Amino acid sequence: ASPSYPIRATLFPGDGIGPEIAESVKQVFNAAEVPIEWEEHHVGDTVDPKTESLLTWESLESVRKNGVGLKGPMATPIGKGHRSLNLTLRKELGLYANVRPCYSLPGYKTRYDDVDLVTIRENTEGEYSGLEHQVVRGVVESLKIITRQASLRVAEYAFHYARSNGRKRVSAIHKANIMRKTDGLFLKCCREVAEKYPDITYEEVIIDNCCMMLVKNPTLFDVLVMPNLYGDIISDLCAGLIGGLGLTPSCNIGEGGIALAEAVHGSAPDIAGKNLANPTALLLSSVMMLRHLQLNDKADRIQNAILSTIAEGKYRTVDLGGKSSTSDFTKALCNHL
Amino acid sequence: ASPSYPIRATLFPGDGIGPEIAESVKQVFNAAEVPIEWEEHHVGDTVDPKTESLLTWESLESVRKNGVGLKGPMATPIGKGHRSLNLTLRKELGLYANVRPCYSLPGYKTRYDDVDLVTIRENTEGEYSGLEHQVVRGVVESLKIITRQASLRVAEYAFHYARSNGRKRVSAIHKANIMRKTDGLFLKCCREVAEKYPDITYEEVIIDNCCMMLVKNPTLFDVLVMPNLYGDIISDLCAGLIGGLGLTPSCNIGEGGIALAEAVHGSAPDIAGKNLANPTALLLSSVMMLRHLQLNDKADRIQNAILSTIAEGKYRTVDLGGKSSTSDFTKALCNHL
Ligand SMILES: CC(C)[C@H](C(=O)O)[C@@H](O)C(=O)O
Ligand SMILES: CC(C)[C@H](C(=O)O)[C@@H](O)C(=O)O
Repeated sequence: ASPSYPIRATLFPGDGIGPEIAESVKQVFNAAEVPIEWEEHHVGDTVDPKTESLLTWESLESVRKNGVGLKGPMATPIGKGHRSLNLTLRKELGLYANVRPCYSLPGYKTRYDDVDLVTIRENTEGEYSGLEHQVVRGVVESLKIITRQASLRVAEYAFHYARSNGRKRVSAIHKANIMRKTDGLFLKCCREVAEKYPDITYEEVIIDNCCMMLVKNPTLFDVLVMPNLYGDIISDLCAGLIGGLGLTPSCNIGEGGIALAEAVHGSAPDIAGKNLANPTALLLSSVMMLRHLQLNDKADRIQNAILSTIAEGKYRTVDLGGKSSTSDFTKALCNHL
Repeated sequence: ASPSYPIRATLFPGDGIGPEIAESVKQVFNAAEVPIEWEEHHVGDTVDPKTESLLTWESLESVRKNGVGLKGPMATPIGKGHRSLNLTLRKELGLYANVRPCYSLPGYKTRYDDVDLVTIRENTEGEYSGLEHQVVRGVVESLKIITRQASLRVAEYAFHYARSNGRKRVSAIHKANIMRKTDGLFLKCCREVAEKYPDITYEEVIIDNCCMMLVKNPTLFDVLVMPNLYGDIISDLCAGLIGGLGLTPSCNIGEGGIALAEAVHGSAPDIAGKNLANPTALLLSSVMMLRHLQLNDKADRIQNAILSTIAEGKYRTVDLGGKSSTSDFTKALCNHL
């Protein structure tokens, strides 16, 4: 069934530079005539009792209803006992897989020019359980939780992703030589799923070795799937290989097929409101959202325009060593459409 | 008090390529007239009831008595229920800090030519507690334990190391935004120790961000101190920056001032006995042992000879793209002494 137009999508511009880079996405979508109508939601100033966080119930309902959304950076106010906004979103929307494609941008030189991999991170449990306590004075413990259900779900997603994106290999990243039971269960689930995908090569790589291999030769990897904390670490490492979080998109896959695309960089309060931010990560994230909606023509067009603008090098934002403002870069990009 | 000569040191050649690279160290120590007498110990075939592992009680007593030792790779037989040899050593000898200097080797080109940092890893607790269990079917948990005692001890060692090695900054690596209590306690201890070292700059860096910064610009770091698993991950990542575990030394500092220097690479059974192994990591580890013994002249001489031989490039082992055997490389190195 083809979707009815216009498609409604939720937009969280977020904090700091969020509104500026969200504005860039809106302009690009207009220029490319993407049939999307945004439902914009902002983080509140007061706690919504229904979500126990600064995120309003309406905003979460909006994502649930629309099934797709785009999110800028959200800074959780420190020291006021607020629940992390990012974690609240993951929890409330059951965002079980965080997908981060990471590839070298043509024309933007880093030490690596051959990166093309995708990290898929379990996004709901593991070391992020929030379960911690003091045993006795001076002795604290935190619980890492691994479940069969969440592990199967993310493994399933990783293999499905690999197959439908023409990728050949899935590497499960772990430390099961030390955490035999938790990471062991994660691997067991990956192996079970791997059986169903004989067309995809499956391998297991210990996390320390994986990090060493990634910095020595990232072309050794294709799709990587892993528990929450390893995903947090490795996805940022990979982003570093190609230039940083300002260039890497992500998309969170949630229960019921929800997709919340997200720029994972910070809100950069120091440059907020100065028209200096690089909208690339949010733009590339919006492209992931379009692909999720199977608007592949639009996605291709916008992605090509982003890559060409950066490759050309005439209009680059300050973080990439250029002199362009957010709006100049956006204009140049729209001209490429 | 100056040590009485000769100094006795324990040597675990270890498995696989271990004996060959240990032989290289012995030859180099002879050539440099290092006043050390080795007490050689091998991993047993049967479990010693006193250590509950393949390590003999005598071998552990030897390290305790001598206070210094050198260790090659040890492969724990898989699937026979043996306790990991490496973990047993850490536990039995209270090896609380694993120190890994990591610097670009002159003349050996990688993507990075400017690395010069030291990772100091808490080596006894954290995610390595071994405490894991199944809660219900399909739900397992593992415990990460952080104690004030172990955190203070490793922090103290890191700052002491920084000061006595002319280093300027200590970065504590953590994920206290998520593991507020465990990593929070670790940071609290680091801060307490930092107060006593006003001459050393102290900073805190979140692990995901740290990995990104390390691959983008490793010169941002000097001394890094961190809980066990982060240390495992980051030290291997750093090794990757300069060429791999075959080139990076390490030394474990234990209770009562014990120092067990160690090559942290694997036992490489595929090339064992073929005179192909690169002894550099074990040699550089032996240099760390010499520095611990304050035999700095010998340490300098051997280290310079190692670096010159590699820099020259005429005699390099296969892993570095050369054609030399272990013994040819060792001979060339001895000629540099
Ligand atoms: C902000 C922080 C809680 C978050 C995480 O640790 O997951 C971030 O690093 C990320 O990767 O989205
Ligand atoms: C072999 C393994 C148990 C060990 C560890 O995880 O500590 C190794 O990776 C190391 O860094 O020494």
